[in-house]
This record gives sequence, C-alpha cells and structure tokens, in this order.
Amino acid sequence: MIKRLFDVDPWGVSSTKLDRADKRLQESLTAIGNGYMGMRGNFEEGYSGDSHLGTYLAGVWYPDKTRVGWWKNGYPEYFGKVINATNFIPIEITVNDHKVDLAIDEVKDYKIDLDMKKGILNRSYTWVKGEIEVRFTFKRFVSAALKELAVIEVTGEVLKGTATIVFSPKMDGNVVNEDSNYEENFWLEMNRVSGEKSSLTTKTIENPFGVEQFTVTTMMETVMENYEERTFSEGFMLVEENITYTLAVGEKAKVTKFVSVLTSRDVQPEDQLTKAAEILDQAIALGEEELEAQHVAAWQERWHKADVVIEGDAESQQGIRFNIFQLFSTYYGEDNRLNVGPKGFTGEKYGGATYWDTEAFILPMYLAVADETVSEQLLTYRHNQLSGAFHNAKQQGLQGALYPMVTFNGIESHNEWEITFEEIHRNSTIAYAIYNYTNYTGDESFLKTKGIEMLVSISRFWADRVHYSKRNECYMIHGVTGPNEYENNINNNWYTNTMAAWTLRYTLGSLEKGSSAIMNELDVTAEEKAKWTDIVQKMYYPRDEELNVFVQHDTFLDKELLTTNDLDPSERPINQHWSWDKILRSCFIKQADVLQGIYYLNNEYTIEEKEANYNFYEPMTVHESSLSASIHAILAAELGKTEKAVEFYSRTARLDLDNYNNDTEDGLHITSMSGGWLAIVQGFAGMRTFDNKLSFKPFCPKNWTGYNFMIKYRKRLLHISVTQESVSVRLEEGEAINLTLFDQEMLLTDEVKSQLQ
Amino acid sequence: MIKRLFDVDPWGVSSTKLDRADKRLQESLTAIGNGYMGMRGNFEEGYSGDSHLGTYLAGVWYPDKTRVGWWKNGYPEYFGKVINATNFIPIEITVNDHKVDLAIDEVKDYKIDLDMKKGILNRSYTWVKGEIEVRFTFKRFVSAALKELAVIEVTGEVLKGTATIVFSPKMDGNVVNEDSNYEENFWLEMNRVSGEKSSLTTKTIENPFGVEQFTVTTMMETVMENYEERTFSEGFMLVEENITYTLAVGEKAKVTKFVSVLTSRDVQPEDQLTKAAEILDQAIALGEEELEAQHVAAWQERWHKADVVIEGDAESQQGIRFNIFQLFSTYYGEDNRLNVGPKGFTGEKYGGATYWDTEAFILPMYLAVADETVSEQLLTYRHNQLSGAFHNAKQQGLQGALYPMVTFNGIESHNEWEITFEEIHRNSTIAYAIYNYTNYTGDESFLKTKGIEMLVSISRFWADRVHYSKRNECYMIHGVTGPNEYENNINNNWYTNTMAAWTLRYTLGSLEKGSSAIMNELDVTAEEKAKWTDIVQKMYYPRDEELNVFVQHDTFLDKELLTTNDLDPSERPINQHWSWDKILRSCFIKQADVLQGIYYLNNEYTIEEKEANYNFYEPMTVHESSLSASIHAILAAELGKTEKAVEFYSRTARLDLDNYNNDTEDGLHITSMSGGWLAIVQGFAGMRTFDNKLSFKPFCPKNWTGYNFMIKYRKRLLHISVTQESVSVRLEEGEAINLTLFDQEMLLTDEVKSQLQ
Repeated sequence: MIKRLFDVDPWGVSSTKLDRADKRLQESLTAIGNGYMGMRGNFEEGYSGDSHLGTYLAGVWYPDKTRVGWWKNGYPEYFGKVINATNFIPIEITVNDHKVDLAIDEVKDYKIDLDMKKGILNRSYTWVKGEIEVRFTFKRFVSAALKELAVIEVTGEVLKGTATIVFSPKMDGNVVNEDSNYEENFWLEMNRVSGEKSSLTTKTIENPFGVEQFTVTTMMETVMENYEERTFSEGFMLVEENITYTLAVGEKAKVTKFVSVLTSRDVQPEDQLTKAAEILDQAIALGEEELEAQHVAAWQERWHKADVVIEGDAESQQGIRFNIFQLFSTYYGEDNRLNVGPKGFTGEKYGGATYWDTEAFILPMYLAVADETVSEQLLTYRHNQLSGAFHNAKQQGLQGALYPMVTFNGIESHNEWEITFEEIHRNSTIAYAIYNYTNYTGDESFLKTKGIEMLVSISRFWADRVHYSKRNECYMIHGVTGPNEYENNINNNWYTNTMAAWTLRYTLGSLEKGSSAIMNELDVTAEEKAKWTDIVQKMYYPRDEELNVFVQHDTFLDKELLTTNDLDPSERPINQHWSWDKILRSCFIKQADVLQGIYYLNNEYTIEEKEANYNFYEPMTVHESSLSASIHAILAAELGKTEKAVEFYSRTARLDLDNYNNDTEDGLHITSMSGGWLAIVQGFAGMRTFDNKLSFKPFCPKNWTGYNFMIKYRKRLLHISVTQESVSVRLEEGEAINLTLFDQEMLLTDEVKSQLQ
Repeated sequence: MIKRLFDVDPWGVSSTKLDRADKRLQESLTAIGNGYMGMRGNFEEGYSGDSHLGTYLAGVWYPDKTRVGWWKNGYPEYFGKVINATNFIPIEITVNDHKVDLAIDEVKDYKIDLDMKKGILNRSYTWVKGEIEVRFTFKRFVSAALKELAVIEVTGEVLKGTATIVFSPKMDGNVVNEDSNYEENFWLEMNRVSGEKSSLTTKTIENPFGVEQFTVTTMMETVMENYEERTFSEGFMLVEENITYTLAVGEKAKVTKFVSVLTSRDVQPEDQLTKAAEILDQAIALGEEELEAQHVAAWQERWHKADVVIEGDAESQQGIRFNIFQLFSTYYGEDNRLNVGPKGFTGEKYGGATYWDTEAFILPMYLAVADETVSEQLLTYRHNQLSGAFHNAKQQGLQGALYPMVTFNGIESHNEWEITFEEIHRNSTIAYAIYNYTNYTGDESFLKTKGIEMLVSISRFWADRVHYSKRNECYMIHGVTGPNEYENNINNNWYTNTMAAWTLRYTLGSLEKGSSAIMNELDVTAEEKAKWTDIVQKMYYPRDEELNVFVQHDTFLDKELLTTNDLDPSERPINQHWSWDKILRSCFIKQADVLQGIYYLNNEYTIEEKEANYNFYEPMTVHESSLSASIHAILAAELGKTEKAVEFYSRTARLDLDNYNNDTEDGLHITSMSGGWLAIVQGFAGMRTFDNKLSFKPFCPKNWTGYNFMIKYRKRLLHISVTQESVSVRLEEGEAINLTLFDQEMLLTDEVKSQLQ
C-alpha cells in the first residue's frame, strides 16, 4: 500500500502540506548527509508532537551487550549500534514569548523542499498568532566540500504586527537511541563551553568489549546582524544562546548557525576544541554564500557522472534521483574506514554499519557512477578488516577469514546465530566483489596484493567449512542460511555451495597474479591447492532433473510447494502476519536465492537454465526484502519479461518515497537505493561486463518516452540513451573502446546507434 | 572430572572441612526445601567471601522481558524467572564486637551435616579469637509438616574466656537475581513491621505482560532465654533485632528463630500479616522439639515408601539417597499449581519452573515411590494449563494445544525459537505421561475426562503441524528440534515423527473411553478421525536399510560420522569448548534421541532393533545433558551391557555430589535426580509395566553385594531385593498380584524368589 507524502518533482522532495500524522516519515524522507555526518529532517524550531530526533556521525557507535539469555560459544558478544549523537539542529524560536511549535500552531503557506540537485533542505511558512504574522524560512546543509561543517540558517520576516523574536541556537548532548534496551544513555559529558563559540564534548560510555570509546566535540557559532540582545546559557549536556530582535512589519532578521563536528576517529580529544574553532573561523570567513556554492559545486560534479534521466514518467524520474541522492549522501568513498549503513544517516535501526548489501548491491553501481577510487575504498574497507574476519572464523573454530554479516570493525556484531554464523554466503560475495572490481575496471592492482590476501583467506575458510560426505562421495556445506532468510540452518544451499566453489576456483585462478611478496607471506601450499581443486571438482549442487532446476537446498522440494497466488492478500507481507515457524517451514522466499547465484554468474548459465529457475522460484518469492526486486528486474529483463521487469523497477525505485513497506518512518532503505539503478542499467539497458567485454541489450519501458544515463567504464565516460525506437552510446570522455550492442561488436569512437530489437 | 566436597555417608551430606574455595558448591549441595519454599546452604551468620545467596518460593516468579534485538512473530514475549525472595536465613553474630565471619575467621572442629533422613541441616564450629573460644551450633529446617514454617536455631557456648555475644536475627528483602539482565531488583517494599514479630511484605515489580504480581509476607519471631538486652531496628527492606548475652566459660545461649512465609498465591495480601502471626503463634506454642518431631515423622513416612538400599557400595548408596531427598524436597505433590523446577530451591538458573523433564524423567519415578495422587497432581498441573497450551499453538498460527517447553503458567516462557517452537516433541511426552499414569496405576479416571481433553487437543496440534509431501506421498514434520539439542531446525526427526504418530494412535484408541460429557464438548468429527488415521498410516519414518537403523533426521547420515573416541578428551565437554556452529554440524548427540523413542515405546521394538540403534547412536553420544545417562543405563541393561549400565548409573546418581559437569555451584540438577532411581529400577532390576503387566529381569552390579527397594504398584507396596545370586519380591501391602520374573509369570501373594540368570 502506497503512502505518498511528497509531490512528484524531478529534482525535489517537496510538499506544501504540513503532515502532522506522518511526521516521522517526513523526517526520514528529508534526511541529509555528507558521508561524515547527517541528520533526519527534524525541525530546527523544535516540535512537541511525535517525532524521531536523529543526528548521526559515521563510524561512531556503541557495542550494546547481547549476552542476555542463552549465549553460546561463538555467538557475537555485542550488537553494534549506530548511536544518536549531539543534536545540533535546533534553533528554537519564540515570538512575543510564544514558542513556535508546528505541532500546535497555526501556519500558512507552508513549504518543505529537499533540493536534491544542490543537497539543501529548505522550509518556510507563515506563522500566525492573532494579529501577528511572521514568515520563517529555514535552510540547511551538511557540506559536501568541508565534511565537518553544517550550516543552518533561519530568517524571520514580520508580515503583520510588531514582534519580539528570540532565536535560540542550541546543542543538546542528552540524547538516546529509541532502540536502547533499557533506556540507557550512551554518552558522558566531558566538557562544555558556553559563549560565542559554544561547544559540547561527549564521550561514549564504557563497554566491556575493548571497543574504542568515541569522543565527539560539537561546536557552534552564530552569525547575525543588528540584534538587540544576545545571551548565553548552559546546563547538563546543553549549550544555548538567545538572540533577541524586535521587528516591525517588513523587517527581517537572519541567524546563521555554523556547526563543526569532530570525532576522535580523526582528531585526538585534546585537539578537538582548537580544530573545531579553526573550522568555524574558516567557514565564517568564507561566508554562507561561498560555502553553499562550494557545496553545490560538489553535488554538481557528482550528478554529472551519475544522473539518470527518464522521460515521460515523472515518478520514475524522481525515484531514481532520490535513490542516487540518498546513496551519495551516505557514502562517496572519502574514508575507507566507513561503509554504507542500512539506514545511512536517516535512522538507527538494524544497528550495524556494514552488511553484505554493500558488495552485492551497492558496489556494482558505484563502479559505474563514480571514479573507481570510490569502489576501491569499499574493497579497502574489507581489507582493513581482515583481522576481524580471522577473528570471526576463529570464534567458530574455523580457519581462514569469515567476513561478518554485520559489523563496524570487522568483528561480527549481529546477534542471531542463524545470521552470524550461518549466513556465511556473504564471505563469497566479498570475493565476488574483488572479481567484480577487477573485471569492471580492468585494473588488477588491488587483486595482486590486498585482493589475493583476502581471496586466499576466504578460501581457507571455505576449505575448512565444507565437509566430505563419504556416503555421497562429495563435498557438502551443512548448517547455513542462504540469501533467503525465510529459511535457516539448511543443508547444501545451492547458492552457498555454488559461490563457495566459485570462490575457490577464482582464487586458484588468481594465485599467479599475486605479488611475490604477498604470495610468500601467504604461503599457499601444494596440498592446499590440491584440496581446493578437489572441492571445486566434487562440490555437491542440489539439482532436480525432473523439474530441471537447481534445488534451493536439500529438502526444499519436500515442502508443500505453493505460489504467492495461493496466499491470502490480507496476510501479506507474511513477515507481519505469520509466525516465524510458519514462515520457516513454508516454501515462500524472501529474496533471490538460487536466482542471486544466476545473477552473479550470469555468463555461466544458459538462457534455458535461467528461464526454468526463474519460472520455478519467482512465483514463490514474496520479495519482502528491499534487495529482492532489483535482481528479479534484471533477470526478468534478460528473459524478455519486460512488464515484470518494470514492475520490479517501480517497487525498488520508489520504495521509500511511496513507503511501500510501511516502515520508512524508521529511516530509509539505503542499501537498496542502488536497486532502481541496477534495474535500469543492467535490466532495461541490459549492460553486462563479463570477461572484459562491455555489452548492452536495451529496451524501453512502454510508458517511458526514453531514458539516458552516464556510466564510467575503464577511464571512459559513456552516455547511453534509449528511446522507444533506438539506442545511442556516446563516448563523452576517454579513448575509443569496443562494445557489443545487441550481440554485435563495434568500436565506439564517438557515438554508435542501433534500432531496438 | 570429579570434585567431591562432602564425605561418603549413607544418610548424610557432611564434611569436617570448611572449603572456602568452593563455597557456592557447598551451598548448592546443602540446600533444603519443602516443596513450598527452600534455600541454598547459606550461612546464618553471614559470609563475606564469594557466595550465592538464594531463598526461593515455589510459584513466585517474574516475566523478564526478552524482546531485545530481533523479535519475530511467535517468539515468546518474556523469559519467566525464578526469583530470589526475602532472605530470612541470617542470624548474624558478634563476639566482643567482632563479627563472626567464616570467610576470614579462625575456626576449629568445623562440621556441616545435611541429615537426609530427617531433612535437617546442622553445622557447628569453634570460633577462636585470641584467648576467646566459642562453640557455635546451627540447626535449620523448612517444615515438611507445616509448609509455611522455617525454624533456625543457633547455640553459642563459651569454651574459653568471657564473651559478649550479640545474635542478630534478620530478614533482608533487598535481594537480586544473579541472572538479572541489568541488575534490576524484582521486588518493591510494601510494608515493614519491627518488633517482637518483625515482618517484611514485598511485591514483585510490574510487568507489561499481565502476569500476576506476587505479594509475599515474611515474618519472624525469636525465642530465647536469659538475654541481657534485646533491641529492634529496621531499614529499607530490612528488619533486624539484636539479642545480647555476656557469657562466662561453660555458659550457653540459644536463639531460635521461627519464620513464617505467606504468598498471595494462597493468602490475600491484606490477610497475610494476621495469618503469618497465627502460624508463628501456633509454632511457638508447639515448640521447636515438637515441630522437629513432626517434620522428621513426615520424612520417615516418605522414606518408608521410597528408600533404596545399596549394599557394598557406600558411594552409590549416598548418591541414590541424595537424589531422592532432593527430589522430595522440591516436590511432593501437595499443590497442583506447582511442578519440579530444574534447580528446585537450590539456584535460579534456567529460569522457568517446568520442563518436559517432569513427564519424561520424573513422573515414572513418582509413580512408583509415592502414592498415585502425587503423580496425578503432575498431570492435573498440565490440565490446569491447557489454555496456555492453546495460546502457544495459536501464537504459531496452529490449531490445538502446544504444551510449552518451559513455563510457569502454561504459556511458553523460554526465549530461543529453536527451543520454543521447534522442540515440539515435548507435546507428545505430555500425552505419553497420560498413557504412563493410566497404564501404571490401572486407573482410567484421569484419562476419561481431563486426559482425553488433553489428548484430543494435542492431537489437533499434530494434525495441523504435519504437512503432506506430494512428492514423497507421506506426512512429514519439518523444522523441529529433537531431544538432541545439539541439532535444530531439522526435518523429520525420527523421534518427533514417531511420538507424534503414537500420540494420534493413542488418542484414537482412547476416544471411546472419554466420558460422554467431555466427548460432546470436544466434538471430534469423523473427518478429524479420518485425517488422524491417515497420518498414522502415512507418517514418514526415516530409516536406513543398509545400516539397519532408524535415522535421526533426514540428512543425519550425510554428516561426517565419527564416534566419541575420535574426540580430543581436552575438548570435552564439547559444549564448553566448541562453537555452537561446530556442535550443530557435528554428528555428536547430547542425549538420547532415537533411543528416547525406543525407551518410551520399549515394547514395540525387537531386541535386534534396539541393539542396532544403540550400537549406532550411543558411540556418538556425548551425554552432555544430565538426562542422558539414565535412558542409556536402562537400554544398556536390557541389552546385557551391564558394565555400561553401571557406568551410566554412577554418572547420574552422583552427578552433583561429585560435580561431574562442573556447574553444581549454580544449583542442583533436580530434574535429573530421578535418573539414578530409573537406572536401578528399570535398568538393573529390569522393571517393565507395559500392557498392564509388571515384570522384572534383575541383575546385580558386580561391585555391589545387593540392593533392595520399595515400589508402589496399583495399591500394593512391593519390596524387591536383589543379591548377586537371587532376587526376591515381597508383597508388603495390598492384595496378591501377578508378576513376571525373568519371563516367568507367577502370582505374588507373600514373597517370590528366583535365581539370577
């Protein structure tokens, strides 16, 4: 069921309606971020109604204990949580001693507008109280050019009457997480300064796991003119100032709050105050206008490489831009200790920062829409965390490296065993990402050193994790959870077995590329290689000859096999209506599982195999993961099921804008933001890049006039434009390159065109 | 590895050594209880070293929230916890202003002795400080005759010097559970009275689940003579008095503390003070000697029916008596709202009060060692909780009744899904208990009404929980955990399938016995009966022809099949050394699984089938559940593996006395206390009662001279005596009865004898 709060607008998320009933949803959809920090669309002046305050700093987290109940060996010791940090958004306002509060006040000409082109959140309204009317205008951004900086500006203009207006810029460190188990506060106050430059320094509370305690300094300075009075005050974890104006009709006051935020991730606690002040001085010297111009220029540069234009379907256009905007707000590769969190800076659900979603769904897009350094940072992130992956494997009593399902630092931080030590297929996705990066960019430098180290470490894990079944004379993998999390502790998940064997095969084939220094260190023995080869040769892949499909796992076909048509619509989504027991035993699939493997190794299966498996599994799939639609869109497109492909596209591209899953109030589905892009580029345009070959097989959705997009590929910038009739590929930057259009190879020097088939 | 703290003594748990390093272990092993309340062996005078204070009241608990993390539909909402109640044990002592504290003080002639025949805990020592020596003697019991009463007595006699001795009887309501997640205190103070009769009234804190809040009044009155001074004091959740004596050499002082405890389970909060005072008045009027005599008489009566005498092996003798003593201290059938908690009154681990252990392991013993009313109470407990069982099934979206794995009130209160909604085989054990009771006692009155209601409700659950596999043309049960908790979410667990089909079969066979009133109400349709019959006929039982065994579950034989001989002894027990992942994937079995079914339906399998399965599974079994050894002892005995049987006996009978599992400090393994008895009676003596026939096939363990025991059977009391040469069965009470001795039927009128075979 759709709930659409904002207008359809090609570059904006805007509305002229103040929707008090869905305040949290508005906050999620108007969140902004710059990869370093970000915040939900909370109102500067405060809001006494239901609301979810959220200001988050990348890489600042707390390991909440999970060791309640029935802890067992190998369970993770904590659940890593993104934590709410000092709230620096507020500029509270009183008019003639009345606190401005949109939860109860009368306002008119309300408008909120997130400008996605510029990365700026604007809001304005006329506040009415008796004979007084004041027009307030808010603008804020977290700078894409100077990451530690946020700028928040408020203007008040009196339209009727005379008004004494007090603006109160404020910072509040006394914040909690809504998902805190026992209403704990995760922060301690370390220092507080009140004055022209006010600041709060807070530090995360102690933890018994040896995880770093983060110290954060948040400093503000306000710039304004012609005020009557300015006072400062402070309290526990709170600093505030009050700036008073008395204005007649037509008079205006403008207050600009500059905020700098520093964390001990980058700056030692003892240097934070000095550095924060320097940043503010620098920013104020430049001035709001110049800062804004730099910020907008940075966004322009991003859009130049990544924009997708859709003609004839405004909703789709808005959807894809919203996806790209939110993804770039979350991550643009500046810091290889960071990753793409499931909620980005838009909420605190799902705890950890990093899921396999990054490699499976995000990396393929970044490879094409940003410089390759951005993608390389994501791989380097995993290389940095290799020691954590060794730790995870060791916790299970296994050799090699097991990348975590959820993490901040490489150590598993989720808290369900059926995820943490069963959903181990993610380990192969890390290997696949190395393949994907190397194959897409053609650059083997990562593979030679960091990459081969990761591949060997992952392969060592798989070689220890499989077991040989004497009875069946093959290798098996028992006790796993596949991508379909609606089953777990299953045996011989086709996807897991396939990708584990693929990883061993890819590693074996890459050994000779490793630098001699690293190969010496890794010391892969002949015995190991022989074992890996044996596993590749004797891996068991469940398959049913009669149905001609790969079997999801050993006993899948013993289930009662139904299709989603058999489901009572009132019981969907099943995860909100059925018991977990019923879900686990049913045949219904949460997201692509066998089909995920067919997507990854798309060049290794025949079209008949793809068709048989798609036709068998898709009808059982409930797509209750936000990651499901994109993979199905791509395969449906490949199989000529274009209407299905478009249906899946819509589902993923406007998932949050239309609140499909009825949970966007908790934050946006950041890691599925690439889904729409993948559906268009790999689905509709049919882009493939296997075996160092770039190819397209486009079609144009029926209700679109056309669509075009840019992609980066091996130092080139290409512009692909598709209409109902034809496709053109233009080389915007870089040298000539071979490509395949509808199975026809050609050399692209300037532009090539083809009729659609 | 054995740790034996106490001397080997046929009737005592005694020691002359003060073992400060193992204080908690001492406290567990000297716990006492009377079914209504009980306490660990905490010292009256206090103890400043490591210790675990524990005073528990039957049926008084708190539903601790479990909804942290990743709660899913159908998960239980809370984890029911036995909670520590007002500590009424203390009588603190100072001698010339020195607080007596055995953690640091010098003492000599120390002795502690739990007298199992009488149910009294005695302790004494000579306290030495410079020139002063005082002999202290402690005695306490919780009355088996007047359940709300505890009596605690201290005597001090000066052996050297002159001493001012202050005795301070005390009650402390400010207690916590060691397993409290966030150091919560589960109690509120409601009322406090200080004076001759001091009291504390406390109430459990609120909970969001609608579970009853319990109000408890604990009242004390002290009786003593010739004291110098007596004062009273109080504080938050604390009442205390101080009784001062100045004694010369040879002089004695005796203080007797009478305590009455009332809970809102039986007495309304507003009546508790009056009633508690009445009980104290009544007790003090009778006097300590008379109270003790009544208490000892009650124990004598119990022992008369239940004692097992072992000749020639003092350790075994002590072990079996300790088992019986602790079991009777926990439960003797007075209150059908109570059950046999896993730690009884000896600790607070494992939370809930009631496990399937009761029906599987405890009931068969109570049937034979106490009047049948005791066993009937256990069945009535489950009947009382039928509505909770309906609730549990409904939570899973299923029809009928699902008895809980762990509970206080019938509603599931454990917090792991792999237990709560997968370990559903317990449902059949409830049905089996009805069969067991009916078959053992020959009394069908329970079956006719309450029993048939339970059976039909359980059968309705099974009929909905199975599914029909078209492909295999049979009924299957997917997604279960068998008795072997070292695997879970398995398909077609042979034991679960077998017992589910057995339950349907037994229910179908019992329908005609149901009273017409109840059968009308139950309204079992012809369609239902047909479905049940179909399931019975087409149930799938995994079986391997080649190995000639029942297969534990669908893919068990695909595992790497090893035996415990392949295990590194330093890695045992595996649950303390291996990751849960490794355990789940291994072939190693925690406790009887297929063999549990062969034990239950012992008359349905051939000796060859028993042998093949025992020989296949036992070598893979690590026996890391305290419930494993008894079943294996019985089957080993039946198969003539007498040495193995004796080995298993020793393991179960002295599990706690010898701290085999290195966890007795947390409390005793109450629900496995019947294991030794089962091993002797069903194992060594080979008692069977299937099909209304009583039979024995005894042997005598090599290192025993002989053994004898009493059993109740269908209103008779029989005495069975076995030596190395012969067996005699004597009718002690009741009418003549047929029995089978070594396959020879005979009529027992007075005594029968036979040579061993």
